[in-house]
Amino acid sequence: MAWSGLLQQYKEYLPITEDTPLLTLLEGNTPLLHAENLSKELGIDLHLKLEGANPTGSFKDRGMVMAVAKAKEQGSTAVICASTGNTSAAAAAYAARAGMKAIIVIPEGKVAAGKLAQAYMYGAEVIQIEGNFDRALEMVRAISETSPVTLVNSVNPYRIEGQKTASFEIVDALGKAPDVLVIPVGNAGNITAYWKGFLEYNERHNSGLPKIFGFEAEGAAAIVKGHPIEFPETVATAIRIGNPASWQTAVDARDQSGGAIESVTDDELLAAYQLLASREGVFVEPASSASVAGVIRAVQQGQIAPGTTVVAVLTGNGLKDPQTAMDCKVIRPRQLDSTAPALQHYLEEVLSP
Amino acid sequence: MAWSGLLQQYKEYLPITEDTPLLTLLEGNTPLLHAENLSKELGIDLHLKLEGANPTGSFKDRGMVMAVAKAKEQGSTAVICASTGNTSAAAAAYAARAGMKAIIVIPEGKVAAGKLAQAYMYGAEVIQIEGNFDRALEMVRAISETSPVTLVNSVNPYRIEGQKTASFEIVDALGKAPDVLVIPVGNAGNITAYWKGFLEYNERHNSGLPKIFGFEAEGAAAIVKGHPIEFPETVATAIRIGNPASWQTAVDARDQSGGAIESVTDDELLAAYQLLASREGVFVEPASSASVAGVIRAVQQGQIAPGTTVVAVLTGNGLKDPQTAMDCKVIRPRQLDSTAPALQHYLEEVLSP
Ligand SMILES: Cc1ncc(COP(=O)(O)O)c(C=O)c1O
Ligand SMILES: Cc1ncc(COP(=O)(O)O)c(C=O)c1O
Repeated sequence: MAWSGLLQQYKEYLPITEDTPLLTLLEGNTPLLHAENLSKELGIDLHLKLEGANPTGSFKDRGMVMAVAKAKEQGSTAVICASTGNTSAAAAAYAARAGMKAIIVIPEGKVAAGKLAQAYMYGAEVIQIEGNFDRALEMVRAISETSPVTLVNSVNPYRIEGQKTASFEIVDALGKAPDVLVIPVGNAGNITAYWKGFLEYNERHNSGLPKIFGFEAEGAAAIVKGHPIEFPETVATAIRIGNPASWQTAVDARDQSGGAIESVTDDELLAAYQLLASREGVFVEPASSASVAGVIRAVQQGQIAPGTTVVAVLTGNGLKDPQTAMDCKVIRPRQLDSTAPALQHYLEEVLSP
Repeated sequence: MAWSGLLQQYKEYLPITEDTPLLTLLEGNTPLLHAENLSKELGIDLHLKLEGANPTGSFKDRGMVMAVAKAKEQGSTAVICASTGNTSAAAAAYAARAGMKAIIVIPEGKVAAGKLAQAYMYGAEVIQIEGNFDRALEMVRAISETSPVTLVNSVNPYRIEGQKTASFEIVDALGKAPDVLVIPVGNAGNITAYWKGFLEYNERHNSGLPKIFGFEAEGAAAIVKGHPIEFPETVATAIRIGNPASWQTAVDARDQSGGAIESVTDDELLAAYQLLASREGVFVEPASSASVAGVIRAVQQGQIAPGTTVVAVLTGNGLKDPQTAMDCKVIRPRQLDSTAPALQHYLEEVLSP
């Protein structure tokens, strides 16, 4: 049977009533790819959950389809969110499909090009503010209490409900829960959602529970440091968040699962970013590679033992942020005459062992 | 059962032997999304085949997984191709995964940012030449005859074999072939592949045959005009091709199916591009929207009758080319003070009917 989208497919696990519109862009059902080359190198069994294959290119679609469907059900005509970019792309796309307005508040100058292009193309109203993500979130929380507009940040509980479905898919693909799940942490909604998903699936199907390892970027590692970061900084703009909204539930996921929340440096993160592309053919956005950077470190430090089955969540598509790729590879194509001999000569150079 | 990639999934339809490595990035199995809003407006039953959900963001992955697997099987250690961008991204990714080299020849200054970023990230050798795509293709064809490197442009027959699998998926999702299939035409490999796929599936499953409608960009409409275009021009860089390599087989697909090959202007194409995003929440690259621009025209002109079941192939992900989105929406976010009252005021403006 063809995949019919998350709301239809996981109806019985979601807060869906007879009145909930079964909104979909056919989100979910994303590939779980075995990392053949990295598994060998690391001595573990590493699988990559490719969330960049979702309709707007990130895992945010899972939660947004649920949140926008419920907003529509409740008679709302507009949604609002603060965003480092991916949430706004998802909100704008689902609002467009549902015939609703989307209002997006983003931190100035810190949203990747692809994400901004998406919000506009999907027809959202985009507002840039001087402050960072945390400030934007405060603003939209306040405003949604007094205006006829539905807040669809992950403080909206339907977001977490939708996002938990990724855990179901992982269990279905592997036949049971992995030993370890590794995930980037920004606002901490996703780590919360995955843990909730594993718990609920385990209750119904006895599918087991993974240890949850979350990784923040070092310059924005509020949970690791134990206090909010006033001026978060990292190349991974998607997780440039200094005061995670779902802080406590992330800590619960860590503690209940016997996992850990740690941080990776921008260097580690960019190294993993390039390794994923050049060794596995998987191009993700910088924030996503925090998970694989974390896996590499945890294996080296013995926190993840040889032979362990690990799923690393790759949260977003590399095409969201071509600029970081360009910067990090210092892209400067070879210019050649458009003649066969020039190419022949170059080829001999490249192909010589 | 979890999707295991094209080579595994469609083994019996593909030139796979015991020695063919079952290479995969879990390509294929892309969504067929019902275009709810556009269907109503156009009075037809329109479905969108979302090929941008493939691992590197375009349909090219289908053919490339087959071509690179066969190159590997035959002992080759390097692949080469000319490209308007998507072919090179796919070649680079599968070569990376297979542990092979990829050499990419692209026309200078006419490749979208995301595609260039991909080729580099996946570790390809990238050569820019002064000429256009057609010139680049001539060069790599010549060179591959004298160098130990496998040509993976769509003149490599394995490319067409892999690409035909999209037709299988459409038939499986709809239960039979659609009345009409609409597809962008550049080098004309894909239209050739789809027709081959429908023919083969029909032979085995009696699944029916669609009429095939192909659309070139007006500034690069060699088949429509009946002669090669020396200096092709269009905003849709992916189909900026003046001398299609699979010209004759495209004409055969048109004639055998009782379809048509026509052209759409850049204006029509950009209008469809924006409509898809703002009405259906589907962001594609400009070349892809040639199919929907064509559907709109064909419906208006009565070539596609009310009630017809139409599948439009959306060949690539909008994130490949953020610049065209920016240019066409003249993106200039509203700047606001980061204060709740400023946002409140703005909101009242936006939400007022
Ligand atoms: C690509 C990407 N990865 C990771 C995250 C972090 O997810 P969360 O904020 O739920 O912790 C985000 C959030 O914006 C994201 O966009
Ligand atoms: C996005 C996109 N659409 C359409 C096409 C045209 O396909 P073909 O060259 O097989 O006709 C291409 C080819 O490069 C492409 O990249």
